[in-house]
Amino acid sequence: MALINNTKNLNDSYIIYGLNNCLNFFKSSNDYSLKLIALDKNGIAANNQEIISKISPYDNLVERLDTKDFNSRYNFKHSQGLVINFEGDLYSDLYSQKHFSGNSCIIIADQIKDPQNFGQIIRTAECAGVDGIIVPKHRSVHLSETVMQVSQGAFFHLDMYIETNLVSSIEFLKSQGFWVIGLENSIDSKEWHEIDYKGKVAIVIGSEGEGIRRLVKKSCDFLATIRMKGQINSLNVSAAVSAVLFERQRQLSK
Amino acid sequence: MALINNTKNLNDSYIIYGLNNCLNFFKSSNDYSLKLIALDKNGIAANNQEIISKISPYDNLVERLDTKDFNSRYNFKHSQGLVINFEGDLYSDLYSQKHFSGNSCIIIADQIKDPQNFGQIIRTAECAGVDGIIVPKHRSVHLSETVMQVSQGAFFHLDMYIETNLVSSIEFLKSQGFWVIGLENSIDSKEWHEIDYKGKVAIVIGSEGEGIRRLVKKSCDFLATIRMKGQINSLNVSAAVSAVLFERQRQLSK
Repeated sequence: MALINNTKNLNDSYIIYGLNNCLNFFKSSNDYSLKLIALDKNGIAANNQEIISKISPYDNLVERLDTKDFNSRYNFKHSQGLVINFEGDLYSDLYSQKHFSGNSCIIIADQIKDPQNFGQIIRTAECAGVDGIIVPKHRSVHLSETVMQVSQGAFFHLDMYIETNLVSSIEFLKSQGFWVIGLENSIDSKEWHEIDYKGKVAIVIGSEGEGIRRLVKKSCDFLATIRMKGQINSLNVSAAVSAVLFERQRQLSK
Repeated sequence: MALINNTKNLNDSYIIYGLNNCLNFFKSSNDYSLKLIALDKNGIAANNQEIISKISPYDNLVERLDTKDFNSRYNFKHSQGLVINFEGDLYSDLYSQKHFSGNSCIIIADQIKDPQNFGQIIRTAECAGVDGIIVPKHRSVHLSETVMQVSQGAFFHLDMYIETNLVSSIEFLKSQGFWVIGLENSIDSKEWHEIDYKGKVAIVIGSEGEGIRRLVKKSCDFLATIRMKGQINSLNVSAAVSAVLFERQRQLSK
């Protein structure tokens, strides 16, 4: 594909597409290196005033294509006629964080596998004022193309961390004054709304089907659950995250 | 496809697949007519004790296939080696409902377009103890194959209604003692957790992007909103529904 960058460097190369993702790229405060903006001359993006004003300072990087050429080159379902290629580091270093503010909230996603779920979790978390999301290096989805797309560009406005050992990350957060709440249906679990979410909290969620791993769960200060009221007994993890994060917001508003 | 039924009748024919969907078919209290159970002899479902016990009374309807034949006939991504064909009416008649219990909750989905969103909304609603979901006849997704699959069979345990005129449905619900809450970001909106969800409530949600239509919104008693705390300002409608429905459950638990 035309976008692949042949010069070796320390940064990774990413492709994003669609109005929301690309607008959030420009709104991001991080220092990414823009490599290429591909625009379908007759597409939605080419007629969007906000996009036009955002890309105008980078005119030398804009490749304007006929619809046919654009579609043959960028075969994405919801591109809306706009693809951006950039380089940079999407992940932050947890241990170099020197200051977490008074009501910081970090999500620790223990081995989420489904990119749709992970993308929705990032999107919901950003809307609910979460500061960062930690995922393990192994057996977890990361910021793939699907995840970025589903998140609607939310990952640009959160600190994203990849950690080798989640138990160590939890210990570090505890040393910074965090309480750690595991979302898990267990005999020790309180109802999600009986937990105090004020102050610094880390919320641990488990993988679809398997939940939180034993040692990670053992590191939690509290366990919270959302008891099911129907028969299917199967709340999607991103829906559960939404319920918990907005309960936190409710409490913070009091 | 082999499943198509050639005899004309008043019922519609549906195909569902996967363990969760099919188990919920058997748990449903509705009166559906089972036509065929297709089983991959070496698939996950054929080795699942719960499935084996549920299908054993219908052995004459079970078609056991080699994996290759099964896959060539039923090209579904998450079938887990099990497909069920049944006939019946998935929708209920709103106006024939003679009794709504004290804390009934009905969702009115005004022109949701995305089958993933609608499936997730049904799934979350069932887990949060919602009694029924109303969708308009036109410009709305209905119970398509994707919706049924994403809902994990939740639609079997809710009353699903298709109505021509949502304003009339709202008037009917009001006559039955419902308060009607529209989820809409408007200057008149209260925060979602400032609304009283006890008693009979109908919660109206709008389509992705466009919100609730004017006349439907005018029929609402209250408007509720979830104020965004981040920068993307774009909460998925199914995540918003989760926040509201579990706030209702929190209030009911007090």
